[in-house]
Amino acid sequence: MNRDIPEFSLQRMPIYLNFLRTLPDDGTYNYISSGAIAQALGLGEVLVRKDLAYTGCAGRPKVGYPRVELIAALEKFLCVNDSKCAVIVGAGGLGSALLSYGGFTNYGIELSCAFDNDPKKIGTYIGGKPVLPMDELNEGCKKYGAVLAIIAVPAAAAQTTAELLIKAGIKAILNFAPVQITAGDDVKVINIDVAANLAILASML
Amino acid sequence: MNRDIPEFSLQRMPIYLNFLRTLPDDGTYNYISSGAIAQALGLGEVLVRKDLAYTGCAGRPKVGYPRVELIAALEKFLCVNDSKCAVIVGAGGLGSALLSYGGFTNYGIELSCAFDNDPKKIGTYIGGKPVLPMDELNEGCKKYGAVLAIIAVPAAAAQTTAELLIKAGIKAILNFAPVQITAGDDVKVINIDVAANLAILASML
Repeated sequence: MNRDIPEFSLQRMPIYLNFLRTLPDDGTYNYISSGAIAQALGLGEVLVRKDLAYTGCAGRPKVGYPRVELIAALEKFLCVNDSKCAVIVGAGGLGSALLSYGGFTNYGIELSCAFDNDPKKIGTYIGGKPVLPMDELNEGCKKYGAVLAIIAVPAAAAQTTAELLIKAGIKAILNFAPVQITAGDDVKVINIDVAANLAILASML
Repeated sequence: MNRDIPEFSLQRMPIYLNFLRTLPDDGTYNYISSGAIAQALGLGEVLVRKDLAYTGCAGRPKVGYPRVELIAALEKFLCVNDSKCAVIVGAGGLGSALLSYGGFTNYGIELSCAFDNDPKKIGTYIGGKPVLPMDELNEGCKKYGAVLAIIAVPAAAAQTTAELLIKAGIKAILNFAPVQITAGDDVKVINIDVAANLAILASML
């Protein structure tokens, strides 16, 4: 369980994994140094070593990390090989896009289904996944063994949605609604406000 | 220009703005203290004061910040009243969802158009915005006066896309492709990897 690791280190782990996975398999990168990783990703070398130390994979002095082992250590760290189910609440534009997105499987995550309260969407399939009614939330989360959820509903519905998900046994929420949700200490939340991120970029110009 | 302000403070500004905007207008919140803001958002009070100091809005001792003035100061800080155009590259599932998303206007940002290389999408309208061919990127960015862009293309195309956008005069990029892009010191980038964020949450369980 990675709760004791600083969140900023956690956030960099998928970046390291993606980078290592994309290196060519031609033998040039059987080993890769923390310096090379740092330079490629625009990070400090000491920071890279501290982060990678959390995975338990050790580098060899003057040689670096054995790439295949480091990838395996990062995959283990990110529980890539433990298949996990997630559900999504909100089958609107964003919800539909996420249901059809193939990238979750790179991390062993499957989006099992969506929940919505729009009768035109309930009973349909998006990206091959069923859209279920909100009143089947508890049943659906248990059926799929879901402990992860994505919130893709309007701001006004986000907090209520979070509370329903937590009652249904969800322990971690990725929230796209443009509002902070309160979830209690034993539920982990990451908030992504797309418009706010663009506004921050704009304010730096 | 907010480039000298710590990025973490910048990231909290839209959170403060959203929170203050949603308080009732019944007179109860003509003033709001840093303590009340901190408690509502689960932040430290000293942190809140440091962040809000960047806006230039001063709180009154024992009373707090005048809410309307603080909202105005945050809106000015985030350039909400300067209308800005953004373009998006990639009119797939995510790109389409973003084109139809109304939340950007809360920050004075308009998504003007999308660019794609899929002939079935070029010439269509999504969310009322035109989908233009990639070879009109330079012309389109100039026509709309766009300095912001969103990348919603597959990972393999992201770096090339970023380079084309920078050549077209884009100064700030919100990147959804699951890969880090390199952009040079005078272009600001925020990377959002949705699957990685869900993986990080999963790894904390």
